[in-house]
Amino acid sequence: MKYCSNCGSANLAFKIPEGDNLPRYICENCQTIFYQNPKIVTGTLPIWQDKILLCKRAIEPRYGLWTLPAGFMENNESVEQAAIRETSEEAKANVEQVKLYVMISLPNRNQVYMIFLAQLSDLNYAPGIESLDVKLFTKDEIPWDNIAFPVIEKTLNYYFDDVTTDQFPLHVTLL
Amino acid sequence: MKYCSNCGSANLAFKIPEGDNLPRYICENCQTIFYQNPKIVTGTLPIWQDKILLCKRAIEPRYGLWTLPAGFMENNESVEQAAIRETSEEAKANVEQVKLYVMISLPNRNQVYMIFLAQLSDLNYAPGIESLDVKLFTKDEIPWDNIAFPVIEKTLNYYFDDVTTDQFPLHVTLL
Repeated sequence: MKYCSNCGSANLAFKIPEGDNLPRYICENCQTIFYQNPKIVTGTLPIWQDKILLCKRAIEPRYGLWTLPAGFMENNESVEQAAIRETSEEAKANVEQVKLYVMISLPNRNQVYMIFLAQLSDLNYAPGIESLDVKLFTKDEIPWDNIAFPVIEKTLNYYFDDVTTDQFPLHVTLL
Repeated sequence: MKYCSNCGSANLAFKIPEGDNLPRYICENCQTIFYQNPKIVTGTLPIWQDKILLCKRAIEPRYGLWTLPAGFMENNESVEQAAIRETSEEAKANVEQVKLYVMISLPNRNQVYMIFLAQLSDLNYAPGIESLDVKLFTKDEIPWDNIAFPVIEKTLNYYFDDVTTDQFPLHVTLL
């Protein structure tokens, strides 16, 4: 942040506002305080029998690596709606029985990942604009060495561990 | 947003970037795209025997009304750490056995509320700088007509309904 988005002044300070306890960007000209907060990344873990659906990324970062259909939650939607939307956009897949499964905070990236378990409604899936490929994998078929993000690998590990007990409790943690 | 925070130009457009499907603020001078996303509000529902702890707000909005200790999640922390921090800041209370209890999206306010159930560790609580008062209430003592936000009233209703069955599942919904 180099200029005030309210008045255009370059006279920005990074300091603790009165009554606050964290430094913020403050415009010394118009006194506007700018808050920066974590973003929510949400999506689904789509299930079909003993397989799960992964997307091969067509965008950076991690172009060409595999991930779950997920992305940034937008304004004017619920977390669950965002997860279903991302699944539709990235994998052109329809899901049902959508249930929150992991909430993983990434304090170093200022993100909170929320992945929902979901059943594929049918086999009509296909790569969206941000995917090179979309494919169903059994546990053994998953390209474990080519997963795009540690948080996705962690989610997949939770899932296949939970499959062994057929219990799928909410997992809340941080990475 | 009236000026680009990257280059200071007033030449901002609000339009759909190439390859995107939602309008964003875009600087026509330096081409920076500005994304706006929902914020997480998190806190706890602190429990002591058959009572819960509420805070009387010392700030707007809803000055003088009662709420749970909660506030905006900051960068560089986990959701659970943020909930515990807010409980400490607003009610000077220590909590333990912290467990995610409700996730309520507020699409019209671009917020996601995440409230954790928590046990008070002791009775050393007191108003923080943003609270006029902090007090334990039984269900019947709660000032139901003076609760600050509908999302808090909904959370309290979930809790006292769940008390009757002694089951406290995660509630995911929107308001």
